Amino acid sequence: MEDWPYSSDNCSVARALSVVGEKWTLLIMREAFFGERRFREFRTRLGIAPNLLATRLDTLVEMGVMDRVPYQEPGDRQRHEYRLTDRGRDLMPILIALLQWGDQYLADPEGPSVIVRHHTGPGEPSCDQPVHVVMECAGGHAPLRARALLRTPGPGARLADSPRPSSPDGVG
Amino acid sequence: MEDWPYSSDNCSVARALSVVGEKWTLLIMREAFFGERRFREFRTRLGIAPNLLATRLDTLVEMGVMDRVPYQEPGDRQRHEYRLTDRGRDLMPILIALLQWGDQYLADPEGPSVIVRHHTGPGEPSCDQPVHVVMECAGGHAPLRARALLRTPGPGARLADSPRPSSPDGVG
Repeated sequence: MEDWPYSSDNCSVARALSVVGEKWTLLIMREAFFGERRFREFRTRLGIAPNLLATRLDTLVEMGVMDRVPYQEPGDRQRHEYRLTDRGRDLMPILIALLQWGDQYLADPEGPSVIVRHHTGPGEPSCDQPVHVVMECAGGHAPLRARALLRTPGPGARLADSPRPSSPDGVG
Repeated sequence: MEDWPYSSDNCSVARALSVVGEKWTLLIMREAFFGERRFREFRTRLGIAPNLLATRLDTLVEMGVMDRVPYQEPGDRQRHEYRLTDRGRDLMPILIALLQWGDQYLADPEGPSVIVRHHTGPGEPSCDQPVHVVMECAGGHAPLRARALLRTPGPGARLADSPRPSSPDGVG
């Protein structure tokens, strides 16, 4: 074990998990990335209990990952839909990384159920190639393997025995 | 919303979450990636209850993400340590993607507590540049943004109203 005297109270992995680490949350995000916006649609697609779905959506709105926007259909009462913010869209690499690992190790024998492809805009040459995530360094080396990574203290590093403000999710 | 008539029962994201989606699991993996192997060390680093830690480690061993290997120190009883398998190391991009999002949106004002760097082996020119994940397509386009991605049915896609085998974690 490398010597690592720093606290993990302000670890960004733990903080990210405090937003997306709850069961269901990344599945809600999966649907949102691919166009779902409405409570009823999330519920149908996921088979999630309405109270759980409501709580999860509230958290995502609070955390700035989704905006709650009113809409009204003719003859119906006003409802809200949930739209991804930029902060929410930036969660996509987490989802693709999960997809990729699941595809590699846990897919059915016939193969993955979903392939995420590069979709080019109108006027651009079409691509449609499958998408994956790659670990890359700022020096341009890629793809990197896990063994080639080392953690080093950042500007926010604190020694483990310095005073510990409580972490956002209590798990450090 | 795009038309998406397929079942998400065999979705690889849900399957990956059935392995690493429990609270604590990715934090255990974080420590494992950076060299922790022993029960007592995980416990101290994470402040996790021993029974929870034992359950999580059992799951990770069952899922082939870690190997449980006996060791014995002089004068002590035999114990086990937990070593990442290749399947476990392949979870690293998920962790780096979480780190990156947390660093961007939730870090303390002074900056991230950890910077993961590219560590080159002996005899290689040193690099030490910070590491991030990038979404890239097989056509070599990178970095891709979330808006440039489209999901398409893969070889394992099933229509949503075809018979549904239960999904591994029951959340589909």
